[in-house]
Amino acid sequence: MRFFSDNAAPVHPAVFDALAAANAVDTAYDSDALSRALDARFSELFEAEVSALWIPTGTAANSLALAALCPPFAGVLCHRDAHINNDECGAPEFFTHGAKLLVCEGEGAKVTPETVCAVADAISDGVHWTQPRALSITNATEYGLVYTPAEVSALSALCKARGWGFHMDGARFANAIVHLGCSPAELTWKAGVDVLSFGFTKNGGMSTEALIFFDRALADDTRRRRKRAGHLLSKGRYLAAQLHAMLEDDIWLDNARAANTAAATLAKAAGDRLLHPVQANELFLRVDRQEAASLRAQGFDFYDWAVGEIRLVTHWATPQGEAGALAAAIAAL
Amino acid sequence: MRFFSDNAAPVHPAVFDALAAANAVDTAYDSDALSRALDARFSELFEAEVSALWIPTGTAANSLALAALCPPFAGVLCHRDAHINNDECGAPEFFTHGAKLLVCEGEGAKVTPETVCAVADAISDGVHWTQPRALSITNATEYGLVYTPAEVSALSALCKARGWGFHMDGARFANAIVHLGCSPAELTWKAGVDVLSFGFTKNGGMSTEALIFFDRALADDTRRRRKRAGHLLSKGRYLAAQLHAMLEDDIWLDNARAANTAAATLAKAAGDRLLHPVQANELFLRVDRQEAASLRAQGFDFYDWAVGEIRLVTHWATPQGEAGALAAAIAAL
Amino acid sequence: MRFFSDNAAPVHPAVFDALAAANAVDTAYDSDALSRALDARFSELFEAEVSALWIPTGTAANSLALAALCPPFAGVLCHRDAHINNDECGAPEFFTHGAKLLVCEGEGAKVTPETVCAVADAISDGVHWTQPRALSITNATEYGLVYTPAEVSALSALCKARGWGFHMDGARFANAIVHLGCSPAELTWKAGVDVLSFGFTKNGGMSTEALIFFDRALADDTRRRRKRAGHLLSKGRYLAAQLHAMLEDDIWLDNARAANTAAATLAKAAGDRLLHPVQANELFLRVDRQEAASLRAQGFDFYDWAVGEIRLVTHWATPQGEAGALAAAIAAL
Amino acid sequence: MRFFSDNAAPVHPAVFDALAAANAVDTAYDSDALSRALDARFSELFEAEVSALWIPTGTAANSLALAALCPPFAGVLCHRDAHINNDECGAPEFFTHGAKLLVCEGEGAKVTPETVCAVADAISDGVHWTQPRALSITNATEYGLVYTPAEVSALSALCKARGWGFHMDGARFANAIVHLGCSPAELTWKAGVDVLSFGFTKNGGMSTEALIFFDRALADDTRRRRKRAGHLLSKGRYLAAQLHAMLEDDIWLDNARAANTAAATLAKAAGDRLLHPVQANELFLRVDRQEAASLRAQGFDFYDWAVGEIRLVTHWATPQGEAGALAAAIAAL
Repeated sequence: MRFFSDNAAPVHPAVFDALAAANAVDTAYDSDALSRALDARFSELFEAEVSALWIPTGTAANSLALAALCPPFAGVLCHRDAHINNDECGAPEFFTHGAKLLVCEGEGAKVTPETVCAVADAISDGVHWTQPRALSITNATEYGLVYTPAEVSALSALCKARGWGFHMDGARFANAIVHLGCSPAELTWKAGVDVLSFGFTKNGGMSTEALIFFDRALADDTRRRRKRAGHLLSKGRYLAAQLHAMLEDDIWLDNARAANTAAATLAKAAGDRLLHPVQANELFLRVDRQEAASLRAQGFDFYDWAVGEIRLVTHWATPQGEAGALAAAIAAL
Repeated sequence: MRFFSDNAAPVHPAVFDALAAANAVDTAYDSDALSRALDARFSELFEAEVSALWIPTGTAANSLALAALCPPFAGVLCHRDAHINNDECGAPEFFTHGAKLLVCEGEGAKVTPETVCAVADAISDGVHWTQPRALSITNATEYGLVYTPAEVSALSALCKARGWGFHMDGARFANAIVHLGCSPAELTWKAGVDVLSFGFTKNGGMSTEALIFFDRALADDTRRRRKRAGHLLSKGRYLAAQLHAMLEDDIWLDNARAANTAAATLAKAAGDRLLHPVQANELFLRVDRQEAASLRAQGFDFYDWAVGEIRLVTHWATPQGEAGALAAAIAAL
Repeated sequence: MRFFSDNAAPVHPAVFDALAAANAVDTAYDSDALSRALDARFSELFEAEVSALWIPTGTAANSLALAALCPPFAGVLCHRDAHINNDECGAPEFFTHGAKLLVCEGEGAKVTPETVCAVADAISDGVHWTQPRALSITNATEYGLVYTPAEVSALSALCKARGWGFHMDGARFANAIVHLGCSPAELTWKAGVDVLSFGFTKNGGMSTEALIFFDRALADDTRRRRKRAGHLLSKGRYLAAQLHAMLEDDIWLDNARAANTAAATLAKAAGDRLLHPVQANELFLRVDRQEAASLRAQGFDFYDWAVGEIRLVTHWATPQGEAGALAAAIAAL
Repeated sequence: MRFFSDNAAPVHPAVFDALAAANAVDTAYDSDALSRALDARFSELFEAEVSALWIPTGTAANSLALAALCPPFAGVLCHRDAHINNDECGAPEFFTHGAKLLVCEGEGAKVTPETVCAVADAISDGVHWTQPRALSITNATEYGLVYTPAEVSALSALCKARGWGFHMDGARFANAIVHLGCSPAELTWKAGVDVLSFGFTKNGGMSTEALIFFDRALADDTRRRRKRAGHLLSKGRYLAAQLHAMLEDDIWLDNARAANTAAATLAKAAGDRLLHPVQANELFLRVDRQEAASLRAQGFDFYDWAVGEIRLVTHWATPQGEAGALAAAIAAL
């Protein structure tokens, strides 16, 4: 029973059906009918004219977004625990040609206008010092917390005031939406987001994310950067098909709901072992070495986090029975 | 009836079966069983210890190979008509951090030791001039010609003598192998190739190529560069599965054979309209504007190339009937 | 008697005087009085509001200009024989983060709207192909020819029409101005140039060029790029002092006039040995191996160019006697 | 009376004399006699075969060193307060093509094997995480402290054990040597340093530093990187001349001694206002706003550092009288 990562989850059957349906000769790259329909499909979802590009990975989606927002000689503000800062082997630096990540603090991997200003205001305006040009937040965060539309708006107000671009890493955007019960529009462009990395792979897709430009002027150059980075797949229709399938009948929401529900089950059992509130599908628990061993002995797999801490991740296909069993095991520790 | 590009071809049923079979929870990235089995599987195919990485696109595979072989301040020798020089929006420059492509001449997009030396020998050794550090050839070439093992060996002898790395862009490697009837080993490491971009997508795959390091020492850093470029898919097992499926029962050879056969049918009909010998699955024909219009009126689609020239591409799934019909239409022009 | 290169010429006495005069404690980097006075001084010279930055080398000045005009994923049109293409070890690729040089043809290293369009019009608009975003010309050219204001205007009209930035590499701008007898304004912004690399080192300076932005909006980011490239010298006042000294009393024009005059003396003697008209301070002559040896035996040093060709370069300090002696020796061949 | 920065100090008369002496026609770039003599001159100084390159700025010298030691996808360990991390507008990221600075802690901007390991040991070996490949220390540090040969050796032992390159930013290397009374060899290669940025500009030079490779194999590629970065000045002899002049008669040591002595005078007066021990030519003092104003009213200029802190810097030409006057004024606060 694996609670390692939603990256390891299976692919939703509807995605497979869509791949099969796409299996005819069509135009290459992103000139096929499915790829060309993405702008309209996502514009409908976001209730606004957006540009939508399929991107094979979240790392590439994030990095392309940052390259669109920040020149090589400037900096991107982000949380110290941000995926872009820690887990992408310098991909943002690669795609931006060396822009610097300027790390901010904040509980549960959430930055606030205050923690962002603490960093930005300490940087003098001279040419010796890397100037911020963009802010990137992760929603839901790397610790499973969710920014509300109001929190996002407060940050975007700061971005507008300072002339910074604003990116949201939404690898678990679906989980955040489900938690909040708000519309995708409310959590993004209505709250001032310029670009969203909209995750699908962790949530039941096979190999694609969507990069959504609310500032559509940024999309054209990004299409060139995508090609230049080797991310323009020649049979792009199989990526577009996955996105259409996930949006159809709100599968993306149902899947996220299932993951969040499983996490809530575990959270309830974990009680005050929890290091952070559980708002999405990740849990961080205080569990000592012996307790961890006991859980593993019962067949549960997961990552050790820090000393005396473990991480549990649920996903769209986490069997209810397994979540229940793990909850019971945790409660019994 | 589409003769535009093998990039637009459908995916082979065995690949779909393999994707379905891979659809269980497994480890993320390339730590799953299928990905971990790639080195062994390709080592068997190439009769040598190789390192094999799945890469979502040929552009990325080529560029990662060049980044492994050439530092930012040096140059890569290649044919003027090479895909890396013309059709990748500067991907080699992106991945190598600005290495320069040094273009060589040669009939049918094939370089020779002579045309390569003509360029390399004109470059003085001083720091003002970009020094070659690698040679990249495409086999089969962008004009559908095939380098023989002897021709590859002659080029690799030059590379060894000069201290250059040697890369083969094998987007249509399968078509070359089928044409030559030689073993994969004979056309690659036995002929001195360091790195091969081994194409699968055009040949019946969905979204993956294999990057094969015969010089295994280069693979480790490339695994980091792959991550950094956003090409380490989180559900890598679906890429590995495609490669295993294509190698199983020699599907890769059967598919290439079918494509080459269809091309040969067309070639026979084209006669002296042919601009280049047809050795793989691409044909370039002298066809005037009126003739092209006539073919299109009969339902055949294809690219105009230069003025008075068209390109035809067959693929693994080109219906025999369509190839026959086009052959007849060409013969009747 | 050395006719190798104006790069090897001595430094004008007025420059030394200015260095000595600058030798007091002052503010570091470019906040000193001399550096701060550059915008005004060059604005006066160019009869327009310009931004002027000292830059230690022409290679850096050119590359910073290109980085200001062209994004990493696009291309810079230039002549095949341009210094930026041949003699800077990939500096433009380094500073632009991998933009591609798109080489055009033309007599004597001069491009024309026709030769530029021949390249640009062959590039389709898709994402696979590097799109031009800037044009760079060298005036005087690498073969000692001079673009007239009318020729520059014709090229800038093309740039405006296509949305390209327009850079002039003026390593020998002074020689061009002297040849034409026009004003600096007429040859630059009045003819549509956006950025000029204004050479001083070859013309009697020690270690500085000026980078002149007629489009001042580009200067701010370039100041950051200059720092980031390690070109913001901590004692910048010694660079600014050189520029002020060279402009004072039109030393820059007198020096260039002296170099051009010496070249004209040689040109007259060379007659139909000349491969190009002599409009600045470089000469390219048909001289066979034996003749070259004979000149060298008489004490004249110079570069062999192609087979049967030599290059002669004069400079501000070329002794009249040496030029006369070489002219006589050439005439006597 | 300016105590802002040694960057603003004048140039030593011997340097001027050397510039004048170099003012003859010679070969361009670094092929002149003075540049070619640098390897030998510095080898003598360091009692070992070294490669020595002139570089116009410390920022460029540091960045070229890091580019020689660390690939784009890896990281450079350094102190949080290191100049390369804070004051170079991302130059290391530019020259290394996006390598990441991994910041370590330590009193007075000095790292220790423990603080370095604290960072390095927290990085797992997988491809998701930027791996350290080099360590860079500054000697004397940004807070005016000096690493002893024993401390440097302890760090180099760690580097050797981990396979990291080891760079010393010696912008104030001379001040460190004078403080320690050891030989240049003892503080560098004998203590395991691979590359040294050897500062001359702050210490009486005009516009050059020396980049010293104890691992000579790294120098060749760096010569190409130097050209590519626009740092190969065409009249390089004027840079080489400065280095020779500063080494002659131990001017570099005398100058540093004068600066250190002036700093010691101030330090004695500052007493327990000192935030760090004074071992070189920088002082950091606890001085409240009113006291700072009082010093300024007496004609002393300096930087405010943090709230309630000021920085004072002396240099080779700080008039003894001014140092004495400032010492008295501080004592009188």
